[in-house]
Amino acid sequence: MLDSRLDHTHDAAALSWVASANDPATDFPLQNLPFCSFRRAGSLEPFRVGVGIGDQILDLTGWGITDLNAVMARPSAERRALRHRLFDTLKAGAPEVELVPQAQAEFALPCRIGDYTDFYTGIHHARAVGKLFRPDNPLLPNYQWVPIGYHGRSSSIVVSGTKLRRPKGQVKPPDAEVPVFKPSARIDCELELGLFVGPGNALGEPFGIDDADEHAFGLTLLNDWSARDIQPWEYQPLGPFLAKNFGTTISPWIVTMEALAPFRIPFTRPAEDPQPLPYLDSPAHRADAAFDIDLEVWLKTPSMTEPVCLSRSNLRHAYWSLAQVLTHHASNGCNLQPGDLLGTGTISGPTQAESGSLLELTVGGKQPITLPNGETRTFLLDGDQLGLRASAQKEGFRRIGFGACDGVILPA
Amino acid sequence: MLDSRLDHTHDAAALSWVASANDPATDFPLQNLPFCSFRRAGSLEPFRVGVGIGDQILDLTGWGITDLNAVMARPSAERRALRHRLFDTLKAGAPEVELVPQAQAEFALPCRIGDYTDFYTGIHHARAVGKLFRPDNPLLPNYQWVPIGYHGRSSSIVVSGTKLRRPKGQVKPPDAEVPVFKPSARIDCELELGLFVGPGNALGEPFGIDDADEHAFGLTLLNDWSARDIQPWEYQPLGPFLAKNFGTTISPWIVTMEALAPFRIPFTRPAEDPQPLPYLDSPAHRADAAFDIDLEVWLKTPSMTEPVCLSRSNLRHAYWSLAQVLTHHASNGCNLQPGDLLGTGTISGPTQAESGSLLELTVGGKQPITLPNGETRTFLLDGDQLGLRASAQKEGFRRIGFGACDGVILPA
Repeated sequence: MLDSRLDHTHDAAALSWVASANDPATDFPLQNLPFCSFRRAGSLEPFRVGVGIGDQILDLTGWGITDLNAVMARPSAERRALRHRLFDTLKAGAPEVELVPQAQAEFALPCRIGDYTDFYTGIHHARAVGKLFRPDNPLLPNYQWVPIGYHGRSSSIVVSGTKLRRPKGQVKPPDAEVPVFKPSARIDCELELGLFVGPGNALGEPFGIDDADEHAFGLTLLNDWSARDIQPWEYQPLGPFLAKNFGTTISPWIVTMEALAPFRIPFTRPAEDPQPLPYLDSPAHRADAAFDIDLEVWLKTPSMTEPVCLSRSNLRHAYWSLAQVLTHHASNGCNLQPGDLLGTGTISGPTQAESGSLLELTVGGKQPITLPNGETRTFLLDGDQLGLRASAQKEGFRRIGFGACDGVILPA
Repeated sequence: MLDSRLDHTHDAAALSWVASANDPATDFPLQNLPFCSFRRAGSLEPFRVGVGIGDQILDLTGWGITDLNAVMARPSAERRALRHRLFDTLKAGAPEVELVPQAQAEFALPCRIGDYTDFYTGIHHARAVGKLFRPDNPLLPNYQWVPIGYHGRSSSIVVSGTKLRRPKGQVKPPDAEVPVFKPSARIDCELELGLFVGPGNALGEPFGIDDADEHAFGLTLLNDWSARDIQPWEYQPLGPFLAKNFGTTISPWIVTMEALAPFRIPFTRPAEDPQPLPYLDSPAHRADAAFDIDLEVWLKTPSMTEPVCLSRSNLRHAYWSLAQVLTHHASNGCNLQPGDLLGTGTISGPTQAESGSLLELTVGGKQPITLPNGETRTFLLDGDQLGLRASAQKEGFRRIGFGACDGVILPA
């Protein structure tokens, strides 16, 4: 499988005429070419579709591309052809064109997000959180059969850099008689990637697992902010609601599935686990449906001069693949549309140090973490800046980065 | 409170120059004036914003109104002024203008629905369903404190008349070892009203209970189709997902809150129940936040010549008011936007005959209902047409109807 996904645009030796794209530390080498929506900072121009290259942005307005959702709706062969054209435009030796420095740009959400669904593919997260919420019953019996997911709120998805007000909500401590309405004292992050849907399917027309890649456009970083004191009181029986929908932060960049092709790995399931039902399984899927993408959580409190990395994980720990969540979502005929966003759920690794949330890192808020400057944290305090980062690396390929997914918590 | 909401547009004696609007049986007398999105059937014209009057539609294109979401975004004083202008245009004695017969029209969703949330305000439904899903624990402890809700799927909301394919999904009978993927055998309806949001609020800026009416634009009928065999296996811990998102049907008409003003009734809570927390309570709210609106479920199987009414309920049975669900939804800062849709949840009455779902009417599928032609049903079979109806009536006022909310189940 792998070979047919790779072409000259993945060649690690290829260089760009944009010097910063050739810096080994850049998130955006010539091999990445992520999409964004940007304008010159402080201007009132409409936002434009752009492509990141080094520390610059290529404006696609002149290419007649003014709506990224329309690009997403195109078949994968056309998306790949566009990648080739972008590569040819930016490769070393091509005539230089005008670019916009990222430092002079401001970003909007990269596309219109019709519906947002958040999955729960991190089994280590599901088990750790389940242990806190349901000590007797941490991993529910459906988890290893059903790619569990729920609908999220589209309106409150914001782009990296947007500050979010600490939510108020109903909280009922276990020993209290009645709930109180007050500012949340347990604001948490969740380390996720978000998958943007490509063409999608019509209502009533599911697709098979081997067609799922056609409907995957690209990935973004996603922080599913959570109010851990609101969540346990409200979530039964219909799932998380106000504990989640006060804000979801994504990075400005969509890294395409084509850029990530070198980092595919086999999708395996432990032999002792239930194997996926036939509609979520195929030989081609097993061959390369998982991804090796490093994920990180960073924190900078108002008293810190530099952020600190709180944990490192990897998308390879997801129990369900991106193709499986796409296929499952549409398996009942639900229509997916270009620009819809599917969160992976919190991707924690098998050890506590690889936790994708403070809830896990602090064992439900009981074990504070100590920061390099001596401060401690269980959950986020006002003014704290939480950032997610991701990158994919592999011997023989250029490193692909995802940019920044940062947010600051404002007082209630 | 009531008086200030009523004006000459509620006068039962007022007549229209549109003869069919003066028929006592019409859903759309001069006092209603519901909005829709329509075009001449079979044409390829763009859809237009219209207002129902008797069996006709007034096209608002000539009024410069081409986007109902923009109307929804206006303050309530402007929405009321528009109602006055519509009333003056259609009242007896005003110059006649061209209308489009409803029989010659086709309808789209009345507006763009950004986010769709479904609440669970029917306590009799919650208790009856809870008893089936959790015999030991039918009404969870949070129910009487939190207006429970969950995010639904916007993309699969369809207008009345759209046929829906029976979904496939994972089903695990309690005695089976492993789940199977197959067509749902337990397709059900849910009798709801949907509230369309008016201006809404910015992210991070909640509003108080006494400002909630400002953000309520109008009501539509809503059938939250449900696959009762998919639901129990998938819904823990994150709530309903594929059991619901294969389709949600709404009527083409939005009946405005202004039209419903005469049918407001006091919001009362049994003295033995917890009273709402202060953010969901006020004297003005208690005065008239509930509504007396009759609701009905109708079924027509392929062998029947006439539909039969399966049950009758009333919105007065909702445990949480429309103002409370709006206020609660935004209480954490979540931004509501013009055209967002908030379902009430299934509104069942206190007796089984007033059940808003087949699940309740048939006691979890164990007691089939017998139809007038001798057929029986537990859940819906292929070809069955399920319809919802609603109307508000009160001595001294014209009856206000909601039009039709019909759907047919196609084979998987």
